[in-house]
Amino acid sequence: MADPSATTCDGFLGGRLSILQPQRGYRAGVDPVLLAAAVTARPGQSVLELGCGAGVAALCLQARVGGLALTGLELQPDYAALARRNADANGVPMRVVEGDLARMPTELRAESFDHVLANPPYYRRAARTAAAQTGRETALGEATPLAAWIDAAVRRLAPRGVLTVIQRADRLHDLLTACDSRLGDVQVQPLAPRDGRAAELVLLRAVKGARGPFRLHAPLILHAGARHERDAESYREEIRAVLRDGKTLPTGWQEEKAMLN
Amino acid sequence: MADPSATTCDGFLGGRLSILQPQRGYRAGVDPVLLAAAVTARPGQSVLELGCGAGVAALCLQARVGGLALTGLELQPDYAALARRNADANGVPMRVVEGDLARMPTELRAESFDHVLANPPYYRRAARTAAAQTGRETALGEATPLAAWIDAAVRRLAPRGVLTVIQRADRLHDLLTACDSRLGDVQVQPLAPRDGRAAELVLLRAVKGARGPFRLHAPLILHAGARHERDAESYREEIRAVLRDGKTLPTGWQEEKAMLN
Repeated sequence: MADPSATTCDGFLGGRLSILQPQRGYRAGVDPVLLAAAVTARPGQSVLELGCGAGVAALCLQARVGGLALTGLELQPDYAALARRNADANGVPMRVVEGDLARMPTELRAESFDHVLANPPYYRRAARTAAAQTGRETALGEATPLAAWIDAAVRRLAPRGVLTVIQRADRLHDLLTACDSRLGDVQVQPLAPRDGRAAELVLLRAVKGARGPFRLHAPLILHAGARHERDAESYREEIRAVLRDGKTLPTGWQEEKAMLN
Repeated sequence: MADPSATTCDGFLGGRLSILQPQRGYRAGVDPVLLAAAVTARPGQSVLELGCGAGVAALCLQARVGGLALTGLELQPDYAALARRNADANGVPMRVVEGDLARMPTELRAESFDHVLANPPYYRRAARTAAAQTGRETALGEATPLAAWIDAAVRRLAPRGVLTVIQRADRLHDLLTACDSRLGDVQVQPLAPRDGRAAELVLLRAVKGARGPFRLHAPLILHAGARHERDAESYREEIRAVLRDGKTLPTGWQEEKAMLN
């Protein structure tokens, strides 16, 4: 019988980070790494990750930027404990708060952050269909609806604070519906597996209190070539640099910043 | 002095259609042609165009599909009169109703349609900024907000009727926010001027009463090459076939249908 508390130790960013994760249940793949690589945080800023799990995204972000005041909020005690262990083991200061983002813990209610990031759960198709049948805004049973993630994020953002979210492309409609007039400069960066293929993931970036227009960027292509044997070995060079060397993801918002400089 | 009622006669679809348009004011470009080429109507179906202007989209759609029962709704009497003249001159039966989509004329209230299409006005940047400042859902002064276009369209659609809209990519957030739970199978087809460039236009297709997931398709690229002298001469072959030969636009939804057949 498998031990339900069994963990594995996995390397991220080419081995720069060692992360303990449960052998079963949610395990971080490349998505939190891509999320962290898309966040425009600068040293000295405060960062809150909603649903931080074992801490992969927050720790990847710290590894790239450095000097961040990191806070993670995690509902599940086992994951919160792992996030604390992972932060310690990698020598990264990180506060991990156990609690439900839909009932924000008191200690976080008084705080605001320069950045909030999140990799909300990707619901199963059955759950999404049920959700559609009861209205886009309805809670998905016991799960927290996407709108609650965005609302919790906006409330915790400082004025001009930046929200960065990664999500499946088929949730983009729900994600944008949840981004109300408290957010502006909303930008969507599709992530497509191959050139000419539909994006499977989207990154969304928005600024609290901003008023700039919505922007849909050209897809960022993850893999080279039209076919592949094993995806892990076919990442395009600039994506490999993100995953293995901890570089910044060349999103549309990064490209614009580079053009302005 | 220019005559405010002066018209020009312009060829569309390689000259298959001759369209009278005002010399000044809104003049149809390629956008209504692309819109018409993205509509999945079949002969025998009923079609309503909201804000039909001089009739370019509806007449292009009839030229490609044939056998459609066409209705256009147009606010401005001059354009409604031109649409009637253009339909007659091109030998296409088309009913043109003069009226405001936000106060649907009585003769259309009792009717429902298999397809509704629209090319809502592209607001100026100043207007859009003002709109953002007063909330996404607020009317843009005297103009009709995008949400009113979508609402009017949904009300006129038959069950399983199909909405097709073309709009600037920077209005996609507003467009999706306006697509509520009465619509499903929402699909977005970005139209990018060049490979690797951000889409400037989006086509949106949605089905009344459907429950399928949202889909974001890979961008359709309009022009060949990375640079151009004159856009009109650099359209990719499949786009030229749409504009000059009246072919169907190879949107994501057409490609899926082709794969199923």
